[in-house]
Amino acid sequence: MFFRGKMEKTAKSKDSNIVLALDFPFEEPKNKEKLFSRAKNVLDRVHPYICAVKINHHLVLPLGTFNGVQKIVEKAHDFGLLTIMDCKVNDIGSTNKVIAQYYYASGFDALIANPFIGWEEGLKPIFDVAQELQRGVILLVYMSHKGATEGYGQTIINTEKRVSIPQYMAFAKKALKWKADGIVAGATFPEKIKEIHKTIGEEIPIYSPGIGTQGGKIKAALEAGARYLIVGRTITLAEKPSEVAKKIRDQAKK
Amino acid sequence: MFFRGKMEKTAKSKDSNIVLALDFPFEEPKNKEKLFSRAKNVLDRVHPYICAVKINHHLVLPLGTFNGVQKIVEKAHDFGLLTIMDCKVNDIGSTNKVIAQYYYASGFDALIANPFIGWEEGLKPIFDVAQELQRGVILLVYMSHKGATEGYGQTIINTEKRVSIPQYMAFAKKALKWKADGIVAGATFPEKIKEIHKTIGEEIPIYSPGIGTQGGKIKAALEAGARYLIVGRTITLAEKPSEVAKKIRDQAKK
Repeated sequence: MFFRGKMEKTAKSKDSNIVLALDFPFEEPKNKEKLFSRAKNVLDRVHPYICAVKINHHLVLPLGTFNGVQKIVEKAHDFGLLTIMDCKVNDIGSTNKVIAQYYYASGFDALIANPFIGWEEGLKPIFDVAQELQRGVILLVYMSHKGATEGYGQTIINTEKRVSIPQYMAFAKKALKWKADGIVAGATFPEKIKEIHKTIGEEIPIYSPGIGTQGGKIKAALEAGARYLIVGRTITLAEKPSEVAKKIRDQAKK
Repeated sequence: MFFRGKMEKTAKSKDSNIVLALDFPFEEPKNKEKLFSRAKNVLDRVHPYICAVKINHHLVLPLGTFNGVQKIVEKAHDFGLLTIMDCKVNDIGSTNKVIAQYYYASGFDALIANPFIGWEEGLKPIFDVAQELQRGVILLVYMSHKGATEGYGQTIINTEKRVSIPQYMAFAKKALKWKADGIVAGATFPEKIKEIHKTIGEEIPIYSPGIGTQGGKIKAALEAGARYLIVGRTITLAEKPSEVAKKIRDQAKK
């Protein structure tokens, strides 16, 4: 609950529920300084209109975790923002533990994991490390891309209860059981957000990616029950990132 | 098929079907040189008994991709070994593409992906990049940890055909359809390997992790249909890694 409370407080103080996904296209490794400057520059311009920064492999792989991405995490913290590592971790427990230790050591306040890996020797070690370090774990429940229907949208059979349920509803229930600090549900599927929100209520905040470039709509996502909107390329690739970020923040506030 | 052929050739020339998972516990970031030396040292001793090296976030996060892990990849290539990036990628297509571009740019011959993300705007961009660069894509079909039963072992309903099938069998069929270069099935579940092998036949080689530390047995995995055995901590954390590696290689040859 530690990370969740921090998010609420930060969203209030920054008067924004926008999470910036600091994503950029592939850049030749030799141009890593240029990429670093570009990322730093977007953050410098956009920070007044967001409450958190989400970082993915777009930056980790070319810049490195320590000294690279860590500097951006520190800068985000200096701006009073929270930081989320979008690693979608889905390995065996001993590996997940090491991954969580490295990302938390580099300063991230939360990380994103895939509940598909299950609890025992899967997610449990991540939740243990997170609790020890008072950091957050956010679980994927429904992703924003078309192919999400194949996995997240499939129907599974609960063999104990002999009933069939959608995969994403099983994930939403696990998120409740495991006390996740947040769940991810794509803005491109607002009807799924609504259904998930009905199950988890106000217990766990919904983070919704897919706004803008991918086609998700701000109003539909929020009305369906999303608490935080994740926006990436619409802002990072814009000619004037701050103007776009402000506009999106203002739309979300309405 | 490019990577698959290379693996066959390398396993033959090295007279080994052992893939070394070069994994180590969390190390304080300031000790990264020590970790790099340790990884290099294990590879130096073990290379005569293996056909490929599998690298995970245990090394990528502390050492960095370029100049860090890339040096180990190059060293492995110098030894005539192939290299597999075990990133278990499971993001949206545009992100997967960037991840694949960075890992392939750092020299990896193949990467591991999670078929749960689906094809459209999911795995397709990875297969496209792999084909363009003549690299491999290996898909997870059944993982080696206990919690794997929750996701990989669940029963799903094929709504078109109105039949229920195990998740891992659906993944195995997708691996065939998508022409994966390999699939992963845990040695801790030999009966699953057998079932999967029955479906995919000799079409796609099975890579089997979980030997040793996790409890998987060499003989059982090979008899069930595994082609390559992935061994990590049993070798990397051993006092005499080369002796252990040789012993495992010899057992697998029987």
